[in-house]
Amino acid sequence: MEHYFIGADIGGTTVKLAFIREDGEITKKWEIPTNTEKKGESIPADIAESITEKMEEDRMDKELILGIGAGAPGFVDTKTGYIHEAVNIGWKDFNFGPLLSDLTGFPVWVDNDANLAALGENWLGAGKGCTELIAVTLGTGVGGGIIANGQVLNGANGTAAELGHVTVIPEGGAPCNCGKTGCLETVSSATGIVRRGKEMIGDYPESTLHPHIKTGALTAKDVFEASKAGDEAAKQVINEVTDVLGMAIANMAIAINPEKIVIGGGVSKAGDWLLEPLEKSYRKYALSRTAEASTFGIAELGNDAGVIGGAYLVKKNR
Amino acid sequence: MEHYFIGADIGGTTVKLAFIREDGEITKKWEIPTNTEKKGESIPADIAESITEKMEEDRMDKELILGIGAGAPGFVDTKTGYIHEAVNIGWKDFNFGPLLSDLTGFPVWVDNDANLAALGENWLGAGKGCTELIAVTLGTGVGGGIIANGQVLNGANGTAAELGHVTVIPEGGAPCNCGKTGCLETVSSATGIVRRGKEMIGDYPESTLHPHIKTGALTAKDVFEASKAGDEAAKQVINEVTDVLGMAIANMAIAINPEKIVIGGGVSKAGDWLLEPLEKSYRKYALSRTAEASTFGIAELGNDAGVIGGAYLVKKNR
Repeated sequence: MEHYFIGADIGGTTVKLAFIREDGEITKKWEIPTNTEKKGESIPADIAESITEKMEEDRMDKELILGIGAGAPGFVDTKTGYIHEAVNIGWKDFNFGPLLSDLTGFPVWVDNDANLAALGENWLGAGKGCTELIAVTLGTGVGGGIIANGQVLNGANGTAAELGHVTVIPEGGAPCNCGKTGCLETVSSATGIVRRGKEMIGDYPESTLHPHIKTGALTAKDVFEASKAGDEAAKQVINEVTDVLGMAIANMAIAINPEKIVIGGGVSKAGDWLLEPLEKSYRKYALSRTAEASTFGIAELGNDAGVIGGAYLVKKNR
Repeated sequence: MEHYFIGADIGGTTVKLAFIREDGEITKKWEIPTNTEKKGESIPADIAESITEKMEEDRMDKELILGIGAGAPGFVDTKTGYIHEAVNIGWKDFNFGPLLSDLTGFPVWVDNDANLAALGENWLGAGKGCTELIAVTLGTGVGGGIIANGQVLNGANGTAAELGHVTVIPEGGAPCNCGKTGCLETVSSATGIVRRGKEMIGDYPESTLHPHIKTGALTAKDVFEASKAGDEAAKQVINEVTDVLGMAIANMAIAINPEKIVIGGGVSKAGDWLLEPLEKSYRKYALSRTAEASTFGIAELGNDAGVIGGAYLVKKNR
């Protein structure tokens, strides 16, 4: 009899859900909107209802479900499934895990969304089978997940692996959403790349980035494209961004000594144009023995990383 | 019947050894010289012989020994007890653990010396019972040990928690023994403090540090003493050193989210004169939620941390 995990990846606008077989194959996936009204209080019931509906569609027996692995963007007590805070969703001191378990009748495990993505890549993606892994997500912000001794690091109060908030510019750095300045996220996120692009072109009147700014929105992709085409301002931005990111990852690697470093998120679509300078910078700042142990890779599971990580969370813990 | 662990802390000049009861009490401790001749090949036999001798002295039955936990300053494969390299001792590709086990007839577990000190503090010292702990040793160099999810981090090839080699000065930093520049060890070790003191006094002709330099050796202790007495150059050095160290620890804490940060080694004898500015700097650079979770403390076990950590290594693994 085939059994199933349920993965639930809760984001600010949608909840991604999936039925996943024990070998990791997704047999069904779907999304529901995240209802953030009333501090997101209806979300557990919305998820439970949607799961019941899809199970009925597939005539799936309750006995076949091994558990739910859920991720949320915030500070999670993984032992209890309690959410200290998940700003984008509206939760604060919200007893999510037990609530979802009561509503569905299934055991529920909860973790931070970035940790779940790291777990997904660790099970079936670019970090397959690594006992030591650093996963970095470069999107609007910079997220991180760390696996050491084969386990996700959560830390004393759920803030482990918040790589976006490593200080990379001790003085005079840009302000970060977290209240500090000079965080990695202010430099090496898509937002940071655009900001540096805009600052940089003042010194480069000939830069091909100018039209992008005039016509509206400059994107991180535009900066990478211009850099590929030889634009000096863009090349300078990519150099800076990868130098700082490589140093931050090297410093993390000195703590963790990872076998693999997996880069995901929108910015990772730049592929080798990101990885090559990044790896060069990493090897400059890492201990040589630490660098020897580690390779880089682009995340392989895309938007499915969260639900697959959720399935793996159940697989590891039940 | 009382059982015993044996702790062995192997350093460049002496091997510290101890019989330790299951409750952590040291019943006997002694040292033997480290014979680094012939690439340290006699060390396992020297240790085995000395243990046999002390057991005979105490008429201790072989059956009472639960195992040996040994630490060495180098890169260790903790699964096998194999030493990749321990420069100060002369070992390279040395199958230490199995060798010592064959010679004594006891099971042997091996780890890096800084990790062992962290384990000792975690069992009975300043980091007692913490599942997330960062231990930093400020001596001639800067060593580190990390405990996460209740386990020591060793990493993919034994270089985890090499905190002394975090890059804190990306450009123009002083050269480090590891071959990089700008490592934490170049700034916040006893050696780094002295170096900065010597550099600093050029700008401070009235500094009370001048006589120390003239009469011979300036020490880190002298810099702390002068700082306490109000010397401006010394205060400046201590400010710099603790600012950089606080940032490096905060960046580590963002990976680990520790409950406790334990500072040991010779420099930690400065006590609150070190801890107060250090903690202030840490709280400036850490995420506020990460900072909330953590307190600082001075290491409590002194020179016994290694052998007690060795005992704990046996206790945890056997």
